[in-house]
Amino acid sequence: VRTTGRLAVLALLVLPSFSPAAADEGMWLPQQVPALAERLAALGFEGDARAFADLTGQPMGAIVSLGGCSASFVSPEGLVVTNHHCVTGALQYNATPERNLLKDGYRARGRGEELPAGPGSRLYVTIRATDVTSDLERLTTPDLSDRARHDVVDRWVKKRTAECEKGGSRCRVASFFGGVQWIEIEQLEIQDVRLVYAPPEGIGNFGGEVDNWKWPRHVGDFSFYRAYVRPDGRPAPFSRDNVPYRPKRWLTVSPKGAGPGDLVFVVGYPGYTQRHRTYGDIAELVAWDLPRSIRRADEQIAIADALAAGGTEIEIKVRPKRRGLANGFKKNRGVLEALTRDGVLGLKKDREAALQAWIAATPERRREFGDVVPALEAMREADRRTRERDAVYGALVGGRGSVLGAAHTLYQLARNRPKKDVDREPEYQERNWTRIAESLERLQRDLDPAVDRAFLRYALVEAAALPAGMRIEAVDRAAGLAPGMAADASGKAIDAFLDRLYAGTKLFDQAYRLALRTRSAAELLATGDSFLALAAALDPLGQEILETGKARQGARYRLVPRYMKALLAQTGGLVAPDANGTLRVTYGRVQGVDGPDGIFFKPQTTVSGIPEKDRGEGEFEAPQRLLAAVRSQRGGKASPWADPALGEVPVDFLSTVDTTGGNSGSATLNARGELCGLLFDGMYETVVSDIVHDPVRTRSIHVDSRYLLWVLSEVEGAEPLIQEMGLAP
Amino acid sequence: VRTTGRLAVLALLVLPSFSPAAADEGMWLPQQVPALAERLAALGFEGDARAFADLTGQPMGAIVSLGGCSASFVSPEGLVVTNHHCVTGALQYNATPERNLLKDGYRARGRGEELPAGPGSRLYVTIRATDVTSDLERLTTPDLSDRARHDVVDRWVKKRTAECEKGGSRCRVASFFGGVQWIEIEQLEIQDVRLVYAPPEGIGNFGGEVDNWKWPRHVGDFSFYRAYVRPDGRPAPFSRDNVPYRPKRWLTVSPKGAGPGDLVFVVGYPGYTQRHRTYGDIAELVAWDLPRSIRRADEQIAIADALAAGGTEIEIKVRPKRRGLANGFKKNRGVLEALTRDGVLGLKKDREAALQAWIAATPERRREFGDVVPALEAMREADRRTRERDAVYGALVGGRGSVLGAAHTLYQLARNRPKKDVDREPEYQERNWTRIAESLERLQRDLDPAVDRAFLRYALVEAAALPAGMRIEAVDRAAGLAPGMAADASGKAIDAFLDRLYAGTKLFDQAYRLALRTRSAAELLATGDSFLALAAALDPLGQEILETGKARQGARYRLVPRYMKALLAQTGGLVAPDANGTLRVTYGRVQGVDGPDGIFFKPQTTVSGIPEKDRGEGEFEAPQRLLAAVRSQRGGKASPWADPALGEVPVDFLSTVDTTGGNSGSATLNARGELCGLLFDGMYETVVSDIVHDPVRTRSIHVDSRYLLWVLSEVEGAEPLIQEMGLAP
Repeated sequence: VRTTGRLAVLALLVLPSFSPAAADEGMWLPQQVPALAERLAALGFEGDARAFADLTGQPMGAIVSLGGCSASFVSPEGLVVTNHHCVTGALQYNATPERNLLKDGYRARGRGEELPAGPGSRLYVTIRATDVTSDLERLTTPDLSDRARHDVVDRWVKKRTAECEKGGSRCRVASFFGGVQWIEIEQLEIQDVRLVYAPPEGIGNFGGEVDNWKWPRHVGDFSFYRAYVRPDGRPAPFSRDNVPYRPKRWLTVSPKGAGPGDLVFVVGYPGYTQRHRTYGDIAELVAWDLPRSIRRADEQIAIADALAAGGTEIEIKVRPKRRGLANGFKKNRGVLEALTRDGVLGLKKDREAALQAWIAATPERRREFGDVVPALEAMREADRRTRERDAVYGALVGGRGSVLGAAHTLYQLARNRPKKDVDREPEYQERNWTRIAESLERLQRDLDPAVDRAFLRYALVEAAALPAGMRIEAVDRAAGLAPGMAADASGKAIDAFLDRLYAGTKLFDQAYRLALRTRSAAELLATGDSFLALAAALDPLGQEILETGKARQGARYRLVPRYMKALLAQTGGLVAPDANGTLRVTYGRVQGVDGPDGIFFKPQTTVSGIPEKDRGEGEFEAPQRLLAAVRSQRGGKASPWADPALGEVPVDFLSTVDTTGGNSGSATLNARGELCGLLFDGMYETVVSDIVHDPVRTRSIHVDSRYLLWVLSEVEGAEPLIQEMGLAP
Repeated sequence: VRTTGRLAVLALLVLPSFSPAAADEGMWLPQQVPALAERLAALGFEGDARAFADLTGQPMGAIVSLGGCSASFVSPEGLVVTNHHCVTGALQYNATPERNLLKDGYRARGRGEELPAGPGSRLYVTIRATDVTSDLERLTTPDLSDRARHDVVDRWVKKRTAECEKGGSRCRVASFFGGVQWIEIEQLEIQDVRLVYAPPEGIGNFGGEVDNWKWPRHVGDFSFYRAYVRPDGRPAPFSRDNVPYRPKRWLTVSPKGAGPGDLVFVVGYPGYTQRHRTYGDIAELVAWDLPRSIRRADEQIAIADALAAGGTEIEIKVRPKRRGLANGFKKNRGVLEALTRDGVLGLKKDREAALQAWIAATPERRREFGDVVPALEAMREADRRTRERDAVYGALVGGRGSVLGAAHTLYQLARNRPKKDVDREPEYQERNWTRIAESLERLQRDLDPAVDRAFLRYALVEAAALPAGMRIEAVDRAAGLAPGMAADASGKAIDAFLDRLYAGTKLFDQAYRLALRTRSAAELLATGDSFLALAAALDPLGQEILETGKARQGARYRLVPRYMKALLAQTGGLVAPDANGTLRVTYGRVQGVDGPDGIFFKPQTTVSGIPEKDRGEGEFEAPQRLLAAVRSQRGGKASPWADPALGEVPVDFLSTVDTTGGNSGSATLNARGELCGLLFDGMYETVVSDIVHDPVRTRSIHVDSRYLLWVLSEVEGAEPLIQEMGLAP
């Protein structure tokens, strides 16, 4: 699935002097789309390409971000459509052992039954994007040291952001093309998001992990939220007094879906691609990051499975984590396989060699760019010396939704609070206090001592195995570990340490945890809480890693834009920047693709494929009402959502559109700008497209709007939703 | 895979008054093909359809049977091509722990290295087929009782066979269309068959059980035998003095293979289909035979796996048995799924209802046919009363390659020997004594006490579970079993019985076993051998089952031809009889097919798919020299065997040709009568075609002659073979 948890900022844009691109792929900035007008017209686009550059016009004004997923307004009453897998957090938050929403789905019968999506659920509407590159260029003089350069950029970003947010918006100053371009982005931030409809898992996640990243698919990966605001129209936290938000723009849902050869757009928030990284960066991924991530995910999936076997309650707690691990495992394995087995790394190497030859060809270029790649390599070499330790430190304090992560957050918040806002680390600035509080509250959703302990133990075992000279001393001291200890002995020491840790904490108590967020560091230590003490003990190492990182980031600000300039000058053409979690427009055609030798993947699937796959259990358990609807459809019942050419109701389709994690839930638009589907996945064979894009084989996977409408009308009887979207059932 | 072990004789032919068939499917008798001339010409056939009726002409004279598999001559020196999976017995027979031919394959470097395929290996060339129906009709007067009718037919068949075999041929009087027609078939029987070339398992069985019955395939399922005869040209058992047989006819191997849309023929020996069985027969398959076979195969595969884990030596002993079990398991499950889940049984029921309506429509038809289906149902009902017991009895004494099976054979041989030949049961007639001796010898190939005991135990546990009133008393007495015993107690009794049995036998000794085949029943009992004693104790039940069977077979001779006549009269058209192990001609086109929803199965695979599937282990372990050849081919090395349209060397292809078990190894001929491939498999989705044929979805799977030639030349460097087939390498 194409969600993204963390967004790592990397690389903008349009060097307007370049000629139009030959290739269609690219996650285009909305501002770039007008330059693609000719190509789009040739593909059958009926509208004005300039419309995409108007962020508050049609269709862009209807596109929203959920933070990690994309979505869009589909009614004047703030109805939002996204993927089913983008609302699992809300389902989990509202689930109880008696009401397993993850399995059964949810349908609000009237506004009063629309459920809060959970603390921290947000909906962002991008309303402005301004190029601020020249503003920064005035400040970053060549004489700055790397560390000073980091601080100049850091303070500039904070100042601009603070200025921008005075009116109540959420803002971000984002770098593109590794710092070649900077854009200030202003977003409306809606804080009251409610769950309207999610299908049962046997529709919304039919095929589960088995089918994930694969084709053919038969998943109705869609769900509905509604945005709520104060009666005066301004965003506000959840309140019974809030009213549905009335967006200026919403998308028309097409009753005709999409068919082979159709031009389609995907508009959303792709998270992170690395197509413009150096060969050295990618080689490092292959040598270290990917194998490590794959191994860890595999081992942690086994932990999650063992925990899930303990009953429904714990299974609900651990399921989203497992789903994330499995998704990442499969994706990373696909990327690694393609890079190594399919020779994509060699391709990347050839490209880098061509770049080096281009640089070496003239004295000017050698002077301007010659030092960049060696300097980046030296920096990687320095990173390598502590990467094992730094990664384990990250796993200890950064574990998504762990109690040690909460303790770390509380302690860092306490350390940053006494500073001036501009001197605080970005995530602990005042603008983020509410979301810190929400994350401490939301943590309760999947908090379970057994789960927490199992994953913390995993990280501690990793810490115990670190080589001498690269130890995490705070852990060694607290747990009684030493380098070279036998696994048996270190395991016993870790278990004893965990006994003490979990006996000595009250952080599992939500109210207590939340109350601590205003305390000073000294007050936190005075509580004697075992996890807070561990977080404090780990702090010196955290500070050391932070400081080193700032100097290296400063160096990157100096080097990477020059690498990018060389690359862009060499390749030419209109180039889209790497994804960085900002609003993008991509386009392509509905098209099948050759599968493994001997197989052609047709571009569409139909409801007939559901009973073919159904096993009545596990990941292939279609609800009886769905199977009954398929039978009556196959029995000849006419449906307005059937495809005339297929003679069937279609389910999912493939397109050549270029997408990545974060695009999940994105509106798929047809040539008339109507929502003809929702993007939800890519294909295993071409997940490496995040690094090197293959325009021939890469496909994205969408759910057809007709399947959505058919499920709502003929399976669920949810006519009010269809009516709200302006379609007669 | 499309082999068949046992052939059950069922149903002939051409009611010449019918009009030409609309459908292409059908396993046509060679004599029927001239009637198809018009249809074949329309499909692009360039030759004279009448040629197929000449069994000693081109191409039919080149087609041979291996007994359970098909094959063909491809050189004037008696070189025979068939499937790799048809020579596994020969590989196993010649394998040692040091020389694992099953895994590594075999290649004779010169005639002197060609290995005997093992005792009992035969090669049959059909040289004459004569309709003898009217001869039988004179004998079977309507007044005969069922039992007398059986004996009349039985003695007539024996007499004709004996007469026919006087010249040294092997003969069979076979019934077609359930006895509507009888044909006497004369075959040349070559007794010295030698292994020339078999590829390694990673080519010849690449994909193994995982890929078996599936598409896409990447298996080089071909191997070569050579036929040897006495210097005077007459068949004789293996001798170093023998010389290669010089067939009058052999096939030219096409260097162009087959491509999409091409007309292809498959000529060979399909084993057994049941398309003309009554609905009641098929319903019985669904209710009892298929579920029972599937369950037993599943359980026995687990036994085989547990045994195989015991080391290479035992693994080699048990592997062919496991392969057969797994093949049957998958096929039967596919048949059952189609009959039940896909509604094919309903289709069969509808057809039977139409036949009943047709019969009921006139008083004449009611008189002529009205009693047939009820009488057949009554017979099934009678069968049902003892089927559990009879099946367990069959499993005990009929287990392929078991010591109890050998003891049973020896005892029955002793009982039959004193009789006049015409009074002996057919399998114990003098004409079969050599093959009985060979089977007792060949048994050594896969004989292992641990394996034998495990499978005998399985059958004894089944015997122990039989209900009171349907017990096998000889087993109860010998093992101390009684109805209703707890599983624990019966298990212990069986184990103690097995201890006694295996301690009390010398039948594992090949020379001893062979020496016994001339002894009388009394002499056998006097040896005191535990297995011979058990075989003798089981004999009364065996005789009872035999007698009952004869009466019922007599009834079938009376009823089934009338059912068939009604069916043929109702449906009309030229109809091919059900397969019965006799020589047939089928035809169709090379064509892909829709797979599961969203997938199209292309008609061809290429060598590129081999590294895609290769995992370097297990069933997907391609030899390094194959992978290297694929790399150099993909690297641009020109090959005369590459397909211009695919730009690759093809591996396997799909066709609409109608085939079944026994067709394995059959020559696939192009429109010019050249060998363009070898049939080796059908598809899981349509294995039910043996019962109800679906012309839209049914496909056969072939290996392309170009893959065979490419492997021989570019992987194996086996130029002499290519030269012998008249092709420059």
